[in-house]
Amino acid sequence: MSEERSVKSRFVLTTRRIEALADCIFAFAMTLLVLTLTLPDATQTKLSLSQLLVGQWPKFFNYALSFVLLAIFWIVHHQQFHMIHRTDRGHIWINIGILMFVALMPFSTDVAGSYGDETLAELVFSANLMILGLLFLLNWWYACRNHRLVDPDLSKESIARGIRRSCITPVVAAISMVLSFFIPRWGLTVYMLIPIIQLHPWFRHRDW
Amino acid sequence: MSEERSVKSRFVLTTRRIEALADCIFAFAMTLLVLTLTLPDATQTKLSLSQLLVGQWPKFFNYALSFVLLAIFWIVHHQQFHMIHRTDRGHIWINIGILMFVALMPFSTDVAGSYGDETLAELVFSANLMILGLLFLLNWWYACRNHRLVDPDLSKESIARGIRRSCITPVVAAISMVLSFFIPRWGLTVYMLIPIIQLHPWFRHRDW
Amino acid sequence: MSEERSVKSRFVLTTRRIEALADCIFAFAMTLLVLTLTLPDATQTKLSLSQLLVGQWPKFFNYALSFVLLAIFWIVHHQQFHMIHRTDRGHIWINIGILMFVALMPFSTDVAGSYGDETLAELVFSANLMILGLLFLLNWWYACRNHRLVDPDLSKESIARGIRRSCITPVVAAISMVLSFFIPRWGLTVYMLIPIIQLHPWFRHRDW
Amino acid sequence: MSEERSVKSRFVLTTRRIEALADCIFAFAMTLLVLTLTLPDATQTKLSLSQLLVGQWPKFFNYALSFVLLAIFWIVHHQQFHMIHRTDRGHIWINIGILMFVALMPFSTDVAGSYGDETLAELVFSANLMILGLLFLLNWWYACRNHRLVDPDLSKESIARGIRRSCITPVVAAISMVLSFFIPRWGLTVYMLIPIIQLHPWFRHRDW
Repeated sequence: MSEERSVKSRFVLTTRRIEALADCIFAFAMTLLVLTLTLPDATQTKLSLSQLLVGQWPKFFNYALSFVLLAIFWIVHHQQFHMIHRTDRGHIWINIGILMFVALMPFSTDVAGSYGDETLAELVFSANLMILGLLFLLNWWYACRNHRLVDPDLSKESIARGIRRSCITPVVAAISMVLSFFIPRWGLTVYMLIPIIQLHPWFRHRDW
Repeated sequence: MSEERSVKSRFVLTTRRIEALADCIFAFAMTLLVLTLTLPDATQTKLSLSQLLVGQWPKFFNYALSFVLLAIFWIVHHQQFHMIHRTDRGHIWINIGILMFVALMPFSTDVAGSYGDETLAELVFSANLMILGLLFLLNWWYACRNHRLVDPDLSKESIARGIRRSCITPVVAAISMVLSFFIPRWGLTVYMLIPIIQLHPWFRHRDW
Repeated sequence: MSEERSVKSRFVLTTRRIEALADCIFAFAMTLLVLTLTLPDATQTKLSLSQLLVGQWPKFFNYALSFVLLAIFWIVHHQQFHMIHRTDRGHIWINIGILMFVALMPFSTDVAGSYGDETLAELVFSANLMILGLLFLLNWWYACRNHRLVDPDLSKESIARGIRRSCITPVVAAISMVLSFFIPRWGLTVYMLIPIIQLHPWFRHRDW
Repeated sequence: MSEERSVKSRFVLTTRRIEALADCIFAFAMTLLVLTLTLPDATQTKLSLSQLLVGQWPKFFNYALSFVLLAIFWIVHHQQFHMIHRTDRGHIWINIGILMFVALMPFSTDVAGSYGDETLAELVFSANLMILGLLFLLNWWYACRNHRLVDPDLSKESIARGIRRSCITPVVAAISMVLSFFIPRWGLTVYMLIPIIQLHPWFRHRDW
């Protein structure tokens, strides 16, 4: 009980429950993506299963892409909260915003998968990702400003690296939006660069 | 093992698992809201994607509104359990009731989104919120009565502030219900006042 | 790190993760119940919203009933694991079985809601509950036999009370199955007795 | 707070959050399987409920099979992370891959259930399981190589046993794929051997 109470100190809110809520919403959004993969009822189509599966190919690509992008955001969330040790009202609301656009991803993915040859569908998808990226940037900036929610001895270099990392997604999303006007079907492939860009030492954590 | 056993004291039930269940149900309900956003199959409609998206506008509004309202309830849950250190039979059942109406929110949101111009649809939505608000009020009152489930030294002022905060939602829901009879399409906008009302010092926690 | 390692002792498996998985599956099954509540598309029916809602009344009843029954099972799970401090292979498999029939509840509820006037539909629902009840009985018996997974000083009276409690659901399910043959529409109402029966001191925990 | 900070050591990433995300995704995928069980609307079919339920028999079999297989993978995940005490970039990505194919299981199950008499449907199902099995093998090999993420004193025998265990699923999946060409409807039954094979002392943990 005493242990329990020390964790629940009355004056410092820990990040335990916001992390639990975030893990659940990320997990659910990632799993709901699978509902964008649907085959028509076997009795109502004349296509063979192999034709159906091949016809679903753009949806499979979008499923994998969205899953990996959400995983990348989850890793960033993990990394940011590894440094963030307490929370406050503003921080919680930024996180609510993050989770709202995480939960929207299955819808955006469905739009991009079903209307893959329209520029607008890709813009919806990219806008969702750009807003997410900007909210993560805001989350880190808010937490680090005057070391509000992080350790007082967190180095300036670590903070700056977090800022740089958080800029990758918005920049790539902006590039993808421009590409969507010119090569509608292929605008989304540019997101596959994100994991590669993150490996560059300029963005990497020393430890992982 | 000894640590594990101390947490699982045989006589005092901690709130760990009810918090875990609540976090999960809140997360699922918030994510399930996205299923209220659906586009018709591309092959079965003559409308363009932009027309479809614009036609979905009331649903987007309701998605965001429900998400934010559920997030506000989650924050209140977080705040209340920050003070509540143990649980008992009555408390668990109040929380089951809360979670039942949290899980109902995707349905109420769907009704309000699909039948947005009918008074009855908005009454269903508002009734769901009013019941949720009253259950949260009951939850706090039950926990604080004779300091049943909170620390003995929790101040009267903190308890009273919790009561005042918990009255915001039922009062706003009552106002919205009345408005729904006169301005059916706009009765729900009044909920957007809740986050603003909560900022007033009369309702605010000193710390966050 | 040392703390982390002590929790993860190599020879004693704690119940932490099976509890986490169970909380998630219970939460998800309880939230998925809401998908059994669906209104037809506004444009494809001539019924008014109030007629639709009234016509859905049996589904609302089944939603609330299933939610409360799952909540009761969750509470029993909580109570049993409050006493159970470690796990082993057999115990994990009993729990997998429990979770399999918990996850099946949205389907059984849907069957009972959509075919409410058929005896068979109620038998499906009752069979699901009876199997769940028997698996919980098995769970407790397995854990307490020779104090396999509980504290050595857990009293015989506590163990026997757990056995008695776990018999309530299977017995009520058996009664409901018999009633389903005679009064198809009302066989399920008998489940509303469970929370009341549990209040009898013969079944109750002293503390909650 | 000090306790919180010790868990969140800045240099060693614990596995707490990857375990939480995995528990959630496993739980959702296992529960989403229930959505593969659907009955047609009572008003749109002339079949009786008993005919509908019997007609769904292959889907029930696939539901139970997929649930148990996912449970087996969850147990292996539990066992592996019981030994794995920290994480790094490569390890997180292997786990993202695992979770991506866990989340795909409801789709594969649906394909195998709806097109059960086609070889291709069973190949999709088996391919999903084989990839999952190989990723779990990779997970264990990566963690144990040079004792990268496990205790330095973990015995060679324990590591080798983990490797042997992780080979069961890929081998069985390969056998099932071959059988699918010859006995399309029965190729999946071979998976029911997995829990039995695992009991052999060559694969078993001494303790559970």
